[in-house]
Amino acid sequence: MRLAGGSIPVAEPVWSVDPRTGKQREQVGVEATAADVDAAVRAAHAARAALADRDARIALLRAAADELEADGERILAAADAETALGMGRLPGELARTTGQLRAFAAEVADGGYLDVIIDHADASLTPPRPDLRRYKIPLGVVAVYSASNFPLAFSVPGGDTASALAAGCPVVVKAHPDHPATSELAGAALRRAAARSGLPEDVVTVLHGFEAGVALVTHPLVAAAGFTGSVRGGRALFDAAAARPVPIPFYGELGSLNPVLVTEAAAAERAAEIGAGLAASMTLGTGQFCTKPGLVLAPAGGAGDELLNALTKKAGEAAHGVMLDGRMREAFLAGVAERAALDGVEAPVAAAGSEDRTVAAGVLTVDAARLAAEGPHDLLLEECFGPVTVLVRYAGAAEARAVLSRLPGNLTATLHLGAAEERGEGEGAALLSELTALAGRVLVNGWPTGVAVTPAQHHGGPYPATTSTSTSVGATAIERWLRPVTYQSAPPALLPPELRDENPLGLPRRVNGSREI
Amino acid sequence: MRLAGGSIPVAEPVWSVDPRTGKQREQVGVEATAADVDAAVRAAHAARAALADRDARIALLRAAADELEADGERILAAADAETALGMGRLPGELARTTGQLRAFAAEVADGGYLDVIIDHADASLTPPRPDLRRYKIPLGVVAVYSASNFPLAFSVPGGDTASALAAGCPVVVKAHPDHPATSELAGAALRRAAARSGLPEDVVTVLHGFEAGVALVTHPLVAAAGFTGSVRGGRALFDAAAARPVPIPFYGELGSLNPVLVTEAAAAERAAEIGAGLAASMTLGTGQFCTKPGLVLAPAGGAGDELLNALTKKAGEAAHGVMLDGRMREAFLAGVAERAALDGVEAPVAAAGSEDRTVAAGVLTVDAARLAAEGPHDLLLEECFGPVTVLVRYAGAAEARAVLSRLPGNLTATLHLGAAEERGEGEGAALLSELTALAGRVLVNGWPTGVAVTPAQHHGGPYPATTSTSTSVGATAIERWLRPVTYQSAPPALLPPELRDENPLGLPRRVNGSREI
Repeated sequence: MRLAGGSIPVAEPVWSVDPRTGKQREQVGVEATAADVDAAVRAAHAARAALADRDARIALLRAAADELEADGERILAAADAETALGMGRLPGELARTTGQLRAFAAEVADGGYLDVIIDHADASLTPPRPDLRRYKIPLGVVAVYSASNFPLAFSVPGGDTASALAAGCPVVVKAHPDHPATSELAGAALRRAAARSGLPEDVVTVLHGFEAGVALVTHPLVAAAGFTGSVRGGRALFDAAAARPVPIPFYGELGSLNPVLVTEAAAAERAAEIGAGLAASMTLGTGQFCTKPGLVLAPAGGAGDELLNALTKKAGEAAHGVMLDGRMREAFLAGVAERAALDGVEAPVAAAGSEDRTVAAGVLTVDAARLAAEGPHDLLLEECFGPVTVLVRYAGAAEARAVLSRLPGNLTATLHLGAAEERGEGEGAALLSELTALAGRVLVNGWPTGVAVTPAQHHGGPYPATTSTSTSVGATAIERWLRPVTYQSAPPALLPPELRDENPLGLPRRVNGSREI
Repeated sequence: MRLAGGSIPVAEPVWSVDPRTGKQREQVGVEATAADVDAAVRAAHAARAALADRDARIALLRAAADELEADGERILAAADAETALGMGRLPGELARTTGQLRAFAAEVADGGYLDVIIDHADASLTPPRPDLRRYKIPLGVVAVYSASNFPLAFSVPGGDTASALAAGCPVVVKAHPDHPATSELAGAALRRAAARSGLPEDVVTVLHGFEAGVALVTHPLVAAAGFTGSVRGGRALFDAAAARPVPIPFYGELGSLNPVLVTEAAAAERAAEIGAGLAASMTLGTGQFCTKPGLVLAPAGGAGDELLNALTKKAGEAAHGVMLDGRMREAFLAGVAERAALDGVEAPVAAAGSEDRTVAAGVLTVDAARLAAEGPHDLLLEECFGPVTVLVRYAGAAEARAVLSRLPGNLTATLHLGAAEERGEGEGAALLSELTALAGRVLVNGWPTGVAVTPAQHHGGPYPATTSTSTSVGATAIERWLRPVTYQSAPPALLPPELRDENPLGLPRRVNGSREI
């Protein structure tokens, strides 16, 4: 918002931009003012009571999936036009998104997330134990900050929104400027789903604008926030959340290098396969995944050379891609150039931009010794968003370990092992344990791009991967939006159904120390 | 630490002080320097690997309870001499502490806290699902900040330490200056227990000094912190934890008013009983419980008058007590005087200090109307540590609700209901729901002092009661010191036993969506 002439506010237009041309497609709306943010949060706050109804939440999540599918063609067309992610990938992202909404409906029905614990009174103990019954209740209005690179699965109808609604928390989403039209269509689908489910539409509101995002995290009625984006933006919002008179939890997914360690044995056995797999993973979606493998430790010597050759060949052949926006393309090209200019860094595949606004993938190499101690090469330990990876050549396990010990926190860490190491011979278990210290998901002989939506998933990791110990993908993502409460000696007639002895909802629970499924 | 003359550091002595006389008892040691803090944290960090052994942790927790009991006489004598809490209460606190250590040993053996989730690979899905296995691992070194008012149960051998050790996290405790001798004895008992269990003694270290506390929360190898104390001190440390280059979770329990609402019906039925119960609860331990009922909404009119009379009589008769230290006594007397000086506030029982260093309990009263809107009376909505409570007289439910809506977050909220309300007639359920928004534990027809150590307990609540959604008492306190990690396609030979299909540890878990006990 800016002030025209004197003090009359002028609403800033929000444009949908085609990254393939750099041209504005359409005006989607205007940026939210502080008053808009306040109104959205208050309306969401007022919708809490309706959202407390478990059956309505299940209906909402299922209806949201249905509504997104019903308007799928239009949503996908808008997403492709705004993000250039392509119709090869986007239908899969929509399926992931609707699958995720339905999975959370199933979690609400299951009720295990309520973590019910009941201890009956016991007068025989010293001191006597009162009747205590614990479960979890929703925190309140949740602010969701959309990601650039997943216009659906990590944006308006994505995992943060789905898990917050499942928990019983109304959501105000700050749309990402890279896909405002998609965000509006998805928001409208969610609001239709609310109306269909007998809930106020204000259980989900979509807002646009940078200042709206700042106002949102400091609003007194916002109780928690979920964020997917850059370290810089995420940390600023985290700091604002922590500095409030009443601090709130800020669940941010910020940045990740996603290191890969290829052992000597793995390289000796599968150099070409690993090189090709790495090329495919680091160029997927034009390298714009938060789980892109950005730093790969491969042995020096012949097997490592073969791996590098396969990587170089496949990365060089990879289709050029259009990045999400022009600013990111420039940051990518500048980031690669800055890294390539470091002493001892080579670029066997040169990342490059073209006049058609596409970029070509890049591969950088460096000796592990350059990363053994603090110095200018530490830039290689920072994420570079886009299709580039750094192959770090190590001579011996000690050199590889020295690099591992200098890495920041990550969403994922990957280990490529030889067949005997997989069977438990040699250093496999020790290396797995070392990588575990670095990340929230540890893969063996696979690639980190691709994050399955299942109960056991964990998409998070030590800072800066995430600002908390939580996950933003998988069933346990719902835990972020709840707080426990315990009733002491509450009369049975006043207890919520979740805490009654007769267990009318059939919830899994722990009673006097014993688990009941 | 101060600098003598030029720049030679002089170790500041740490004195044990008798609050009954104000005199120094003995020098316990010296304040830790920055180098001491660094050494303690590094030693703790090095002890992590040993503490990863589940059986050793179980042995440690049980041995810690045994060692505390074996040295119980000396520990209790020191605690009484330093805190004046009295031998009427302290043996119970020791029993609570050892019971808590043994309860966490049982939780480690149970293993439910690991929250194991396993999803087997499924190639028939789109996209195919890889094998994913999730459990929780310890965060690393935990800093514990001891409470003044529980020299054992919320201090060196208390719930934060016990739950962190149970999780597999070594602990560095910042002792409270009100009971350094007790802290040293308890720390020595824990270190003996470690040695007996085949663990490095450095799994627990006790440090003294304000500056040591600040250095601890900013040490790069400290991974999380637990704190029980004042809003001012806790918030400063919370802010420091959040401002670190790598922020860490700070689990602080800061302050709580612990509101009580007495309905018209409850007052009509049990005025004298409620008044007497309130007097006992607010004077217990000389009012130095974090769960002391500090604000009580009682009806205007005859039944409320009767309640007030009973409260006045019993509080006036209560034994005078010595507070934990002279600074707290002064703060208490000044806090009561400042509140009593507000327009419309009366003091039917006048808190007072005596030359023998004891204080007499106080009761203040005010009309609810004074608290309906922001103003100087908001001071009454802040905790005043010590034996004083504020009886707020309301005329009608609307006036009571107006006060409830202005309260900050609390550890507890208590509802006193009439018999018909208990059976579900009238407003009982609605009021219970309103109090639930204010606190982490909600009691009916009881008193909040006394926090049972059981799986269903929740000792925490909206800020400033706690700085997180976690509890510091009960089985789930262990969750604070863990983070999830998921293994993808890890070969069976490399999996930790907790995640193997054959479940050698017999852990409760969720496999392909189904729970196994």
